Amino acid sequence: MNRATLISGIFRKKTFLCVGLDTELGKIPQHLLRHEDPILEFNRRIIDATRDLCVAYKPNLAFYERLGPAGWQTLQKTVDYIGHEHFIIADAKRGDIGNTSRMYAEAFFQKMNFDAVTVAPYMGEDSVTPFLGFEGKWVILLALTSNKGSNDFQRDWLEDSREAVWEKVMRVAQGWGSPANLMFVVGATHPDAFIRVREIAPDSFLLVPGVGAQGGDLAAICKNGLTRDCGLLINASRSIIYASGGEDFAEKAREEAKKMQEAMEELLHKKIK
Amino acid sequence: MNRATLISGIFRKKTFLCVGLDTELGKIPQHLLRHEDPILEFNRRIIDATRDLCVAYKPNLAFYERLGPAGWQTLQKTVDYIGHEHFIIADAKRGDIGNTSRMYAEAFFQKMNFDAVTVAPYMGEDSVTPFLGFEGKWVILLALTSNKGSNDFQRDWLEDSREAVWEKVMRVAQGWGSPANLMFVVGATHPDAFIRVREIAPDSFLLVPGVGAQGGDLAAICKNGLTRDCGLLINASRSIIYASGGEDFAEKAREEAKKMQEAMEELLHKKIK
Repeated sequence: MNRATLISGIFRKKTFLCVGLDTELGKIPQHLLRHEDPILEFNRRIIDATRDLCVAYKPNLAFYERLGPAGWQTLQKTVDYIGHEHFIIADAKRGDIGNTSRMYAEAFFQKMNFDAVTVAPYMGEDSVTPFLGFEGKWVILLALTSNKGSNDFQRDWLEDSREAVWEKVMRVAQGWGSPANLMFVVGATHPDAFIRVREIAPDSFLLVPGVGAQGGDLAAICKNGLTRDCGLLINASRSIIYASGGEDFAEKAREEAKKMQEAMEELLHKKIK
Repeated sequence: MNRATLISGIFRKKTFLCVGLDTELGKIPQHLLRHEDPILEFNRRIIDATRDLCVAYKPNLAFYERLGPAGWQTLQKTVDYIGHEHFIIADAKRGDIGNTSRMYAEAFFQKMNFDAVTVAPYMGEDSVTPFLGFEGKWVILLALTSNKGSNDFQRDWLEDSREAVWEKVMRVAQGWGSPANLMFVVGATHPDAFIRVREIAPDSFLLVPGVGAQGGDLAAICKNGLTRDCGLLINASRSIIYASGGEDFAEKAREEAKKMQEAMEELLHKKIK
């Protein structure tokens, strides 16, 4: 999916919500366990309940890899079920030497038909650029993540370039890609950082995890992160998909997603009026 | 596999070679293509030809993931075929927020029975420690990698702690694990760094890629990297497994592995005499 299509979808549907499909057998409603593939069944119902309220879906690959070959089949069927109207992110956090990153890119973009893959920056340019050579496909590079460990290395100050590690990652990576094929992960748990983020990358889309279960605040992020093209994909996983553990799980997931969509509609409206 | 078993294997077999199983359909001898699973067949023959010459095998997961669910089956069968006498490394370079890293750990350690997994440090402590809670299982943390991109962020100088990023990773991570469950990746393409590596982590095992196709020099690494417990696993992938593209591929792979084993035997002998 190219940038123009993503942006037009956001303004047409009045939402920049990404639903994280971090589906665990131990957390889905028990009545689904009688299905042949309970995780696929759960995903399908969540997708049906949220399609019109979000522009993106993001399965985290760990949840599928953990199930072995069957998990990869479930993942592929989930991607196929979502279809072509949504931006589909493989939250894989991959990154390896050049010829190996190319393999991962082929796996996610060509074999499985994801639109984007999250990539870790530690190994530098030749670990990232192999993902950037596919028409309509995107790298979402980890910059400042939402977890506690983001304070261990990402915020350290670099002597030569007078910036934090995450700032250098974001600055340098813009020489590898463009706002048409490169986004950044910036966690909702660092709302103050969005001012600096927009100085470094005024036009890039940001994938923002950490709203919902991890405690980030939507309005605070939008205040400094929202651009005229929107420029944000806000992810919520657990707060939506596990809103209820009962037979009403899809209905409750829709209610949670609807709340976020309505808040987003208002924030978008304020920004562009 | 615990540390004592690994070390005793090294000194008994007089080798600290790790064979990288980065197997690609386009690179294996054509006569194998008539087998039902050509990659598995190739791996089996490479394993049979090198078992006594190495202590570890390291499939890079990208090469298997790329093939979808069937690739994961090939990977599992390869791990099963290797058996329990070798240290088996999932070269996966994973790392995610805590609950997600735990999923990856379960996938590699419990579902697939790997001994170790390579982990990227960018997301910090809570992305790494979930991999450290499994008896006899190991994290191999990226510190200073072998690729050109290792110069982009890893070698940057940190103002507060007066050290390079990779040095801080190595120093801080030793508070998360011990030389009994934590190793580090240090590329053979940085031979001069091994003096500093041994100041920071005198007892840790190092997984050293970049000898062979990437041009690193075995003797130069051992000069500063070898310890009385050996402390090194030297990986070679393409230079061994693709030593010949013909019907003699296993024989030629054995010859290449044998050369490395003999060089290692001499270096080990020099060190401990």
